[in-house]
Amino acid sequence: MFISFEGIEGSGKSTLIAALALELQSIGADVLVTREPGGTAFGDAVRSIFIDPQMRIDPLAEAFLMNASRAQHVVESIAPVLKTASIVLCDRFFDATVAYQGYGRGLDIEMLIRLSLVASQSIAPDITFLLDIDAATSIERVRARGTSDRIEQEDTGFYERVRAGYLELAGRFSRIVVLDGREPPETLLAQALQIVVRRRYMVTL
Amino acid sequence: MFISFEGIEGSGKSTLIAALALELQSIGADVLVTREPGGTAFGDAVRSIFIDPQMRIDPLAEAFLMNASRAQHVVESIAPVLKTASIVLCDRFFDATVAYQGYGRGLDIEMLIRLSLVASQSIAPDITFLLDIDAATSIERVRARGTSDRIEQEDTGFYERVRAGYLELAGRFSRIVVLDGREPPETLLAQALQIVVRRRYMVTL
Repeated sequence: MFISFEGIEGSGKSTLIAALALELQSIGADVLVTREPGGTAFGDAVRSIFIDPQMRIDPLAEAFLMNASRAQHVVESIAPVLKTASIVLCDRFFDATVAYQGYGRGLDIEMLIRLSLVASQSIAPDITFLLDIDAATSIERVRARGTSDRIEQEDTGFYERVRAGYLELAGRFSRIVVLDGREPPETLLAQALQIVVRRRYMVTL
Repeated sequence: MFISFEGIEGSGKSTLIAALALELQSIGADVLVTREPGGTAFGDAVRSIFIDPQMRIDPLAEAFLMNASRAQHVVESIAPVLKTASIVLCDRFFDATVAYQGYGRGLDIEMLIRLSLVASQSIAPDITFLLDIDAATSIERVRARGTSDRIEQEDTGFYERVRAGYLELAGRFSRIVVLDGREPPETLLAQALQIVVRRRYMVTL
């Protein structure tokens, strides 16, 4: 079972993933927690270029770079793990490329979807949790963290476009479940766990 | 005018490019010498990942990575320079991705051509010089250099497939001019110069 988590910066993905992993492990599931860009040595090298605040990267180059990380991630990690009974929890997958480089930076949406499907060899998440928060909340939460990388330095308009793009994708793909990112972590965990358990074990908690 | 140079390792691309640049500058042309992967700060960062002998990179991830470098290279460097009267001499361009990741590593040729055209925004070389040498000569020349990177460590069969792939591309695209890489550098320079000058200035040397 392949579950991805999407949302703009500060939406609470990491918190939800960590909590959900613990809960699933506590009921006996094997869980792989991973992220994009990253998830492999190659992906981590790509990530360090991607977030470098000094690096000039054109949107199209960004899209190819994200898909390079994704291709390696799928071949080296996700596809082999999905052949077992494990659950993969992935912090961002290809919706992020469409939301950020497409809706955020203006690249063609259908072209980005095609590129991502080539990179992932058509492997798609079974469930995608979209943690939805508004741009103002995002910026406030990122500021509270202190440091910021190349992507976190974008302006409010950029995050508004990405958020709207994510919601548009949620309307298009039924695998995407929208959660309200302003809810407390325990509420989000309960909602996500309910959905995963129902889907995986065909039971209701 | 956009000229790319292709060929397997040790085929003499660098020598020809340097000599041709000098000759073209001596007759008053503005020349940009560049290469892929590379040509920009982003491309250089990508190159350092690409050639790392310790790095595990799947063929599809390689193809996306090369196109990330290419997308940035075209936007930041090649396209702006082509708007002027300058001549761009580029050490490898998209034929290399098709030859190496396609013919060399077995990825789908048409998919790679489509990816490359997306990355280059359909900008293609006016002339491509393919320096053709056999795999044994290539390996001998690379060994004579001493150190070798991740790509240079491939076996003879790999280089034979890449060479055959390059020749197949030359049969398909009329912009590709095959030069015999066993010829001495001055002969190769004279041949390339003749073709460039005839095409650019509509005169014969």
